[in-house]
Amino acid sequence: MGDPAGIGGEIAAKAWRVLRGSGPVFFAIDDPDRLAALGVPVRIIDRPEQAGDVFGSDLPVLPLPLPAPASPGRPDPVNAPAVVGSIEQAVTLALGGVAGGIVTNPINKAALYAAGFRHPGHTEFLAELTGVLGQEVMMLASPMLRVVPVSVHVSLRHAVATLSTAAIVRVGRTTDAALRRDFGIAAPRLAVAGLNPHAGEGGALGDEDGAMVAPAVAQLRAAGIDATGPWPPDTMFTPSARACYDAALCMYHDQALIPLKTLDMEGGVNVTLGLPIVRTSPDQGTAYDIAGTGVASPASLIAALRLGAQLAGRRVAARERAA
Amino acid sequence: MGDPAGIGGEIAAKAWRVLRGSGPVFFAIDDPDRLAALGVPVRIIDRPEQAGDVFGSDLPVLPLPLPAPASPGRPDPVNAPAVVGSIEQAVTLALGGVAGGIVTNPINKAALYAAGFRHPGHTEFLAELTGVLGQEVMMLASPMLRVVPVSVHVSLRHAVATLSTAAIVRVGRTTDAALRRDFGIAAPRLAVAGLNPHAGEGGALGDEDGAMVAPAVAQLRAAGIDATGPWPPDTMFTPSARACYDAALCMYHDQALIPLKTLDMEGGVNVTLGLPIVRTSPDQGTAYDIAGTGVASPASLIAALRLGAQLAGRRVAARERAA
Repeated sequence: MGDPAGIGGEIAAKAWRVLRGSGPVFFAIDDPDRLAALGVPVRIIDRPEQAGDVFGSDLPVLPLPLPAPASPGRPDPVNAPAVVGSIEQAVTLALGGVAGGIVTNPINKAALYAAGFRHPGHTEFLAELTGVLGQEVMMLASPMLRVVPVSVHVSLRHAVATLSTAAIVRVGRTTDAALRRDFGIAAPRLAVAGLNPHAGEGGALGDEDGAMVAPAVAQLRAAGIDATGPWPPDTMFTPSARACYDAALCMYHDQALIPLKTLDMEGGVNVTLGLPIVRTSPDQGTAYDIAGTGVASPASLIAALRLGAQLAGRRVAARERAA
Repeated sequence: MGDPAGIGGEIAAKAWRVLRGSGPVFFAIDDPDRLAALGVPVRIIDRPEQAGDVFGSDLPVLPLPLPAPASPGRPDPVNAPAVVGSIEQAVTLALGGVAGGIVTNPINKAALYAAGFRHPGHTEFLAELTGVLGQEVMMLASPMLRVVPVSVHVSLRHAVATLSTAAIVRVGRTTDAALRRDFGIAAPRLAVAGLNPHAGEGGALGDEDGAMVAPAVAQLRAAGIDATGPWPPDTMFTPSARACYDAALCMYHDQALIPLKTLDMEGGVNVTLGLPIVRTSPDQGTAYDIAGTGVASPASLIAALRLGAQLAGRRVAARERAA
């Protein structure tokens, strides 16, 4: 569902129109009436297995009625438990194998906090629900670039102060495993960014690259992972540099997000690695400013649905091979 | 000249081949024999005014003989005084109005330090030679984007710790003045980046954006400068965002250099603002690893020569209008 005051319903309806003929099949856990009011034909289902049969003609909806009518741009704390409930239900279905994975529409943390939500963010909540809090890793993936920031939603000062060899190694291991299992890359290549300009230029521009990043690269390599670096951050996102790796490990949020969004504003998909379930998410916010106006682009949600289906398909195939 | 062990001579020769028919006219302050050995026809001149007459047939060279033969990839401290002398001579000619501006080929600071060079970098040396040390500002310019980092060659930790409202305002004022005078933009628009992810998200992700960046934007606006921000760093380099400003003021080196080089690896030109002379530079290093192999691209030097000529032309035109 995501925040019903945001663009989630609109982009879900638009994504269904694009994907109804081709798939991948998805269903919404949402209020059927509020989706129908957006002009999309909805069909209430009571089990996920029914989604495939109706997807060609209607958007399948596992009903989760809202206590108050959704009002675009104006989040209502009364609806917050339903927003959280939609996430919980999706996780339960994915953990049980009834759904291949989950795709989460944008939520507004402030609106949920007001209603008692106590998690730093969507991703941490999912990690807690699936019992792996602290192991979650954020990847942003587009056809041109995959980036994995070692720290995410903290100040730049905090990101620099708390960067550690252990954190880089943890994120590198999780990324390598996910690229192998879920992305189907037999021998993943990780490019590890430096922290400082020119990757520290031999220590003249900061000692972290030599003292922290280089040892992490060495530990990853010792573990059989094809990691290289630290790379000078400013030249590692050119076309020729990107051809040399499958994912870039970045030392802070904007080192990862600036090149990703500069190259591909709409195609970026947020993928949570390190969870026992497949989870993708469009790389956009609730966009209260345009909610209800009909101009929101479904491109990122469509990309998230397609990528989620690919990742889930590989997990299913691997389970079938193992069985 | 730049470092004669680097790619400077080779890219100068290649640039001359491309520009000999169209201009802009330039001359080298270099060792004529070592340039001739690169296979380019050289003509020794003794005054810059002669460059235009010979440029169509030969690369004009104001001679500055090297004490030791240049050896690609192996800088020789014996030649360091000539490298420094070439810079000093160029500055003298530009300050005297005999040259429209200077374009500097890459130098290697370590090689110069070994010979007694005592400046943190090329740009600071130029600022000192022209009497404006501390007022220099680095801009990277490409057809797609102009970026101006508030701090340059310092560690990220130091950049965050020393960021100040005063520094942002100083850089903003210098950028605004240069865009008006040298770039011919009557009403420049400056986009000021935030420091933290999401520009701090109202303080949740760091207080610098509210406490330091926003007041700088306000001071610039109060001074009649069309500054906006702080902008969330990750979304300010998309095509639609870039259409809204003429230069992005960035809070640290890689916030500026990552998007610039991701968008345009070869076309970026380094422009020093705040000097009494026009100075541009190709956005590349000495590239010892490929020096002498003939594969260096002259694209950035050509862009630097063209942009330098444009900026110099506007200064000349303004002086003529004022006279």
